[in-house]
Amino acid sequence: MIPGTEVVVLDVNETLSDMAPMRSRFADVGLPTSEMDAWFAGVLRDGFALAACGDTRTFRDVAAGNLRLILGEGYVGDRGGDDAVAHVLGGFAELDVHPDVPAGLRALAASGRRLVTLTNGASAMSEPMFDRAGVLDLLEHRLSVEDAGRWKPAAEPYRYAADVCGVAVSSMVLVAVHPWDVHGAQRAGLRGAWLNRGDGTYPDYLPPPDLQASDLVALAALLG
Amino acid sequence: MIPGTEVVVLDVNETLSDMAPMRSRFADVGLPTSEMDAWFAGVLRDGFALAACGDTRTFRDVAAGNLRLILGEGYVGDRGGDDAVAHVLGGFAELDVHPDVPAGLRALAASGRRLVTLTNGASAMSEPMFDRAGVLDLLEHRLSVEDAGRWKPAAEPYRYAADVCGVAVSSMVLVAVHPWDVHGAQRAGLRGAWLNRGDGTYPDYLPPPDLQASDLVALAALLG
Repeated sequence: MIPGTEVVVLDVNETLSDMAPMRSRFADVGLPTSEMDAWFAGVLRDGFALAACGDTRTFRDVAAGNLRLILGEGYVGDRGGDDAVAHVLGGFAELDVHPDVPAGLRALAASGRRLVTLTNGASAMSEPMFDRAGVLDLLEHRLSVEDAGRWKPAAEPYRYAADVCGVAVSSMVLVAVHPWDVHGAQRAGLRGAWLNRGDGTYPDYLPPPDLQASDLVALAALLG
Repeated sequence: MIPGTEVVVLDVNETLSDMAPMRSRFADVGLPTSEMDAWFAGVLRDGFALAACGDTRTFRDVAAGNLRLILGEGYVGDRGGDDAVAHVLGGFAELDVHPDVPAGLRALAASGRRLVTLTNGASAMSEPMFDRAGVLDLLEHRLSVEDAGRWKPAAEPYRYAADVCGVAVSSMVLVAVHPWDVHGAQRAGLRGAWLNRGDGTYPDYLPPPDLQASDLVALAALLG
């Protein structure tokens, strides 16, 4: 077993969940489906801005607020706008895990590792998804930055996860598809594992991830 | 004169510069012009992520790195890709100020206030723009977060600007079109003034700005 990987900390949005179906929710409320990328980048931008200046808000508040701005003035304050925001954000509850997730989590658990999730969202948002995928009982804790006072990639959430698990950060490996999460974890003293499902390129302005795999099954094999 | 506005700290990208012409650069290299919004949000997202975990890179490195990812694998490492990145980023050097900027800066200077810029970019990137607009000599300092070790909205850049100007942060007002910048300045102890050129809505998950105006001329009138 690669040392420093006793506890596997898994990001949730896009890392475990397939967010592609959210695009159709944008179409449902009259927005171009391509708008989802700018929206999600904007939500992270604003959550990280809050973290950078020592502040925080819930994912839902930032996500809904940015969506209202995209929907535009015509929607704000009327019931139509509230319905549109609720419809788009309601999409999160119906997301499913990527196809490699159940087998990958089972292989990681079978290796004797402890598994927890750590999301910038609310933990309750993804529990039905884990339940439907039959992996809920593999996850010792479902943690949210809402209990850590800052969004990832600030150090606080990673330290909070280590505290809950009763281990040093150096015993944990953070698994994410987002380079900013991998880098933040590495800065906080964890190992960082980049899931690269789409055969992408890691940003050249960040130090390389400690580990890299094409999906969770491959990661479990790599970790041994 | 409204107290706490002796030194006016002006954001640069989008606050003083009109970034709309950057869209045509995206078209020039075969990308949809709508891609500019997702790109710019992604650049800020990643710069703020670095700030949140106590790290930093230059704006140019993050902007170029994200552009390479958008251009895709086909471009990376070949001269065509480098040319495309250089062509898009070269657009910054040809931006001009918004129409209200020269008169607004002159009115603010005429009121006896000191004016400085503070950008997440490089100060040299915008000096030709100020020169063309005839306002370069109104700006006592052109400051960059590159000398502060963190991107805005972390507190360090605002404190750095106060140090350079030899005043307390409570004597400064930060002017920006970006709510995250206004909020970060307010958290750091400055006043925050939101420029709302497009008759937009301030995000409902942030405390309101101390001041708000439709452009720089209106802000100068408001400040007195």
